[in-house]
Amino acid sequence: MKLYDCQVAPNPRRVRMFLAEKGIELEKIEIDILGGENLQDEFLAINPRGLLPVLELDDGTRIDEAMAICRYFEEVQPEPALLGRDLKEKAIVTMRQRKMEFDGMISTSEVFRNQHEQFLKRSIPGAGGAIIPAIPALIDRGTQTLERFFWWLEKYLEEGPYLAGEQFTMVDITAICAIGFAEWVEIYIPDENIKTKKWYEEVSARPSAEA
Amino acid sequence: MKLYDCQVAPNPRRVRMFLAEKGIELEKIEIDILGGENLQDEFLAINPRGLLPVLELDDGTRIDEAMAICRYFEEVQPEPALLGRDLKEKAIVTMRQRKMEFDGMISTSEVFRNQHEQFLKRSIPGAGGAIIPAIPALIDRGTQTLERFFWWLEKYLEEGPYLAGEQFTMVDITAICAIGFAEWVEIYIPDENIKTKKWYEEVSARPSAEA
Repeated sequence: MKLYDCQVAPNPRRVRMFLAEKGIELEKIEIDILGGENLQDEFLAINPRGLLPVLELDDGTRIDEAMAICRYFEEVQPEPALLGRDLKEKAIVTMRQRKMEFDGMISTSEVFRNQHEQFLKRSIPGAGGAIIPAIPALIDRGTQTLERFFWWLEKYLEEGPYLAGEQFTMVDITAICAIGFAEWVEIYIPDENIKTKKWYEEVSARPSAEA
Repeated sequence: MKLYDCQVAPNPRRVRMFLAEKGIELEKIEIDILGGENLQDEFLAINPRGLLPVLELDDGTRIDEAMAICRYFEEVQPEPALLGRDLKEKAIVTMRQRKMEFDGMISTSEVFRNQHEQFLKRSIPGAGGAIIPAIPALIDRGTQTLERFFWWLEKYLEEGPYLAGEQFTMVDITAICAIGFAEWVEIYIPDENIKTKKWYEEVSARPSAEA
């Protein structure tokens, strides 16, 4: 089993943090996104979308969505539970993780890609399908949606020390990676979001944050 | 337990089809999205995002993402399995479902919302957070991304009768709902995608398609 990975990219980081929290070690193959290696034939033969991360199972099956990879390892090694411990907690983690992904990760991606000179002709990540030029209005939409993301964080932290309550979960991991990604476009946790700033300082000190 | 639902909206339809395939019956409360009921105070007290569907558990917990609701019922009643039967199949279903959602449902949503006169001032579904005007370039981006969605469908159907292989799963449900939604914006399965057209005719005849 091996993981096609990229140290600088936010989605592979979600998987690396997840694995580090579980103490799972895997063979990792680094793909140089900044150098365009993900769009070359060799990698496109592995993932026609040209996106990372990709988990390759021993039988050759490839799984190329971060959450699909994390769910796989949650089943392989349930402890520590990162996707919820019981029926209700699982539903809450799935729901909130998704909000972190949409309002945090994807909004940031839209801000980043649609203003970066490297992607002026490629608004959509990866290869295949359409070639779409950058859409500057998405910078504004993404920036505004990130306000909602930060609002969610502060709201969730009124209920407990972590974003899904008493336990550190995938909701925290996705939020951490989204915040780190947002820093690339110089968008930061608002100063008045005191609970979020304290939480972020604490979770950033976990060893998995270095993964 | 009850489900806040909307007959005409594509995301609630995913949950209704999922429940119908499992034979689960629930109390349903219809919210009139076309009449704007989802953006009025009464419903915003239930879901501040103003989106549907929302599952309300007996203890009052509300789960407001279609996949979180489906995963909940997959655990409550595992048969028939709609999210995969074993470790590998679950990973494949999670991965492919997600592609159907992004390249199918969300692309269609972008085409629909950014050209519909009702949403000229509201590009992002639901309430809360930013008010974003329509972004006409997303009509083009969504239309082109739908080409990739249809490419995936034909490719998956080379491997088996359903989109994740031998079994009808959530991948099929999301794809069916995306295709139905795309018809609203007059985008249809390409004529040359023969396997997809045959599959769509067959799955549309399932009783759950009427749910």
